Amino acid sequence: MSRDEYPHRHRVATRWADNDVYGHVNNVEYYAWFDTAINAYLIGEGGLDIHAGAVIGLCVESHCAYRAAVSFPEVVEVGLRVAKLGRSSVRYELAIFREQTAEPAAEGWFVHVFVDRETRRPAAPPDGLRIALARLVPAS
Amino acid sequence: MSRDEYPHRHRVATRWADNDVYGHVNNVEYYAWFDTAINAYLIGEGGLDIHAGAVIGLCVESHCAYRAAVSFPEVVEVGLRVAKLGRSSVRYELAIFREQTAEPAAEGWFVHVFVDRETRRPAAPPDGLRIALARLVPAS
Amino acid sequence: MSRDEYPHRHRVATRWADNDVYGHVNNVEYYAWFDTAINAYLIGEGGLDIHAGAVIGLCVESHCAYRAAVSFPEVVEVGLRVAKLGRSSVRYELAIFREQTAEPAAEGWFVHVFVDRETRRPAAPPDGLRIALARLVPAS
Amino acid sequence: MSRDEYPHRHRVATRWADNDVYGHVNNVEYYAWFDTAINAYLIGEGGLDIHAGAVIGLCVESHCAYRAAVSFPEVVEVGLRVAKLGRSSVRYELAIFREQTAEPAAEGWFVHVFVDRETRRPAAPPDGLRIALARLVPAS
Repeated sequence: MSRDEYPHRHRVATRWADNDVYGHVNNVEYYAWFDTAINAYLIGEGGLDIHAGAVIGLCVESHCAYRAAVSFPEVVEVGLRVAKLGRSSVRYELAIFREQTAEPAAEGWFVHVFVDRETRRPAAPPDGLRIALARLVPAS
Repeated sequence: MSRDEYPHRHRVATRWADNDVYGHVNNVEYYAWFDTAINAYLIGEGGLDIHAGAVIGLCVESHCAYRAAVSFPEVVEVGLRVAKLGRSSVRYELAIFREQTAEPAAEGWFVHVFVDRETRRPAAPPDGLRIALARLVPAS
Repeated sequence: MSRDEYPHRHRVATRWADNDVYGHVNNVEYYAWFDTAINAYLIGEGGLDIHAGAVIGLCVESHCAYRAAVSFPEVVEVGLRVAKLGRSSVRYELAIFREQTAEPAAEGWFVHVFVDRETRRPAAPPDGLRIALARLVPAS
Repeated sequence: MSRDEYPHRHRVATRWADNDVYGHVNNVEYYAWFDTAINAYLIGEGGLDIHAGAVIGLCVESHCAYRAAVSFPEVVEVGLRVAKLGRSSVRYELAIFREQTAEPAAEGWFVHVFVDRETRRPAAPPDGLRIALARLVPAS
């Protein structure tokens, strides 16, 4: 999928330590970028309070397929969309785009279950969060 | 799957920074443990030379499903098996086990394509590496 | 200083991602090992409750001098001692030892100020923590 | 020192995993930001080739004093200046500035020794690198 198919895009500047001994960004870091793009959106657009909010999002499954290498000091863009928004869970689809490149360097997905911070039992997210997530569902 | 179904097990001590703001190990770190267990095995048992060897392994796909939380300072065990050993690729299956717990805290898989270090084109791994990987294929 | 001059030693297994593009463990990771060795000791020996304890330790200063390279998959030992134990602060001295090597690969120090978890104002640590720290003060 | 006293400034967006269990960016990450700001400058302004250049920079000493907490998803600015430029070494001074804040959240320093990539013996950096570094020496 192309950039346009991701309604939200989050820029990530690579860091020195993202590169591994083979000279490119390690596969693990792509998940750190996914996590960062998702949570920055939830905080900034959905009012998620990671320090004291009653409901938090926990990752229960994630996946990534790697197509092309990325290296520090590149800046990449993380594309984010919502593939499925349930009562207390959400499945995101993500992609990593290098600058001036149409094809994604990686594509993946990530499932959050929203839970009560104390009991860690599934819980519906507050309305503000749900509305922000709903905006990322592509028009069919 | 239980511990016994993973012919190789690699101990990983959690680190302070593995825990995130919600008090448990961040989902991303599980992939770092997978990567560490795989490469430690390839180096120690298969003779992989990460600094100068002609053939290196690159991750093209990975996946993880999370079942239970882990927290620093726990020590976990990564179970490793080979689900499919191709000419120039290998698909690993992995699991994270907490101490004194039979059920895995997470299960995942990870695909390496072996490539020539310079050209980054697919290449058959050396015999030593292939033999070490073949030992991790479960008897059917 | 030699291993013997550090009353507590904590083993750390390196991870794949600790190595950087130059083939050795990145300088930043040594601080992650310091943090891990210190907190593992405070939790295990001093009863520090990182999730709910009233007093927590915050780093206000740290330092490291690098003498020799370390590479994944090496296992290192972090030596830990207490150079100064104040009312609400502690200065640790640390060193990284490679296996079968007498000279440290790195030496550093790290200052914790103990604070109230809510107000973040300096606070005396509980007796259990103080006693554990006092045991790491070398006999003069 | 204030922002103006650092001739180069490098923006760093915090990441989800930078926050630790106490809710703020872990002390270790500040060093990752230092490393990133320095190397991005050396690559972008000084022509450092981290993959194949004959001379590379290795950290031999680093230090950081922490003044104020930073939390994801903040964006910070790393101030960079050169305190001493020797024949084959350089001492950087750095600071972390939060947005709209005059006082640094942290101040530190970092010493690079330039070495031959193969022999790891001290070596003078190429002219392009030296010129870029010299531009960061404050006028006295």
